[in-house]
Amino acid sequence: MSPAPRYSPEEEQELVLDAAVGCIEESSLLGFTIGAIAKRAGLSVGSLYKHVQSKEDLLVALATRQARHTRQLYGEILDADLSAPQRIISLSLLDPAKTRLFSFDEHLNTLVSSEAILQRASQGWLAQMRSAAESIDLMFRDFFQGAADSGELDVANEDELHTLSMGCWSMCAGFQHIALMRNVRGSERQEHLLNYPLQASDYPIVCTQRLLNTYRWREPLSAEAIEAACEQLIAMGYR
Amino acid sequence: MSPAPRYSPEEEQELVLDAAVGCIEESSLLGFTIGAIAKRAGLSVGSLYKHVQSKEDLLVALATRQARHTRQLYGEILDADLSAPQRIISLSLLDPAKTRLFSFDEHLNTLVSSEAILQRASQGWLAQMRSAAESIDLMFRDFFQGAADSGELDVANEDELHTLSMGCWSMCAGFQHIALMRNVRGSERQEHLLNYPLQASDYPIVCTQRLLNTYRWREPLSAEAIEAACEQLIAMGYR
Repeated sequence: MSPAPRYSPEEEQELVLDAAVGCIEESSLLGFTIGAIAKRAGLSVGSLYKHVQSKEDLLVALATRQARHTRQLYGEILDADLSAPQRIISLSLLDPAKTRLFSFDEHLNTLVSSEAILQRASQGWLAQMRSAAESIDLMFRDFFQGAADSGELDVANEDELHTLSMGCWSMCAGFQHIALMRNVRGSERQEHLLNYPLQASDYPIVCTQRLLNTYRWREPLSAEAIEAACEQLIAMGYR
Repeated sequence: MSPAPRYSPEEEQELVLDAAVGCIEESSLLGFTIGAIAKRAGLSVGSLYKHVQSKEDLLVALATRQARHTRQLYGEILDADLSAPQRIISLSLLDPAKTRLFSFDEHLNTLVSSEAILQRASQGWLAQMRSAAESIDLMFRDFFQGAADSGELDVANEDELHTLSMGCWSMCAGFQHIALMRNVRGSERQEHLLNYPLQASDYPIVCTQRLLNTYRWREPLSAEAIEAACEQLIAMGYR
């Protein structure tokens, strides 16, 4: 009789993903190896392949963990005791140092949208990642629909609501993307680099406020409302 | 005496980069090998290493080529015979099928902003990539400053100008980022997927128009002005 396994399959899977995070942080999203992850997790390469089928599959598994983290975090923000536009702008007022899951969040996110990665991932992890991403989409749809239903937001039709929702998402994603590029690529001549957490006068907040206020909210987003949102995030430990 | 080389160093470098593009398109940004690139370019691995020092260096070299392409393309758009807000929104009205350099543009862009890649790239290619990126930044700065100087745009101060410029860039980057994610990751339940080139009623165009029109332009961006911009892009072969 072989000894009882030390870990349940679920625990072993968490070990593998934790080890992968460590290995990627030490090397890179390109440079990590399955062998190094197995070693770090204290498992054989064979055992590791029970959980992920390839390097690409591992990235999709990590992206799934990341999407669930985002779902949880954004869910808390969208449920906060603030007006709807305050809750939206709060997503850009978070302190990444207090809310990010991996140091390589943004790169992982983009990598796992490449066909080459998706083609080499397992159906199992792909389905989980898609389901996690969809759950975030649905949460935002419900949020905006709720703002319209409650009368907090006055929109002409569903298209207008969809445009607002996608615009907010795009701005948020775009600011993160550009900040990343500029911070890493930065030469000394670069000015205006952002410091996190963002302040009300920083351009991502100003632009989001401007875009939000082109819509008819019961209470448009004022400077005071942004300050109050910051206070709330500090109280929640996210700023 | 050895035979005269078939190619100049510059020509050889172009061969290497062309071969790299082909190899990456066949495998992926993660999966390509230096050996396969050398074979495709008809060069020895030793000759190849005269041009790029590592896989990471090669990605930076390709990102440099990409940035120069973007500089050229955006330069043409920003010089077009259109109003300033028309020229800005034109950047989102381009047909990617007619203007993109690589099929992996967006992923490359994000990859080369990762520390892990940058650390393994050569100083030579890094300097060239940064200089190309900076030249794009300067072009946009001059464009917005020109709009303010000519009286086409009325801004209170430099901060307001900077916020507008960064807001436009972020939106444009954010829409591309999200479209990529959704298109690739897309489940059947997803609605509203964008088709390119974008139409005036698509959310990236509506949101950009809304943001632009929160500023004081001599001629705010009307639906007719967007149509006229589309016509101009068709005439230029970019739509």
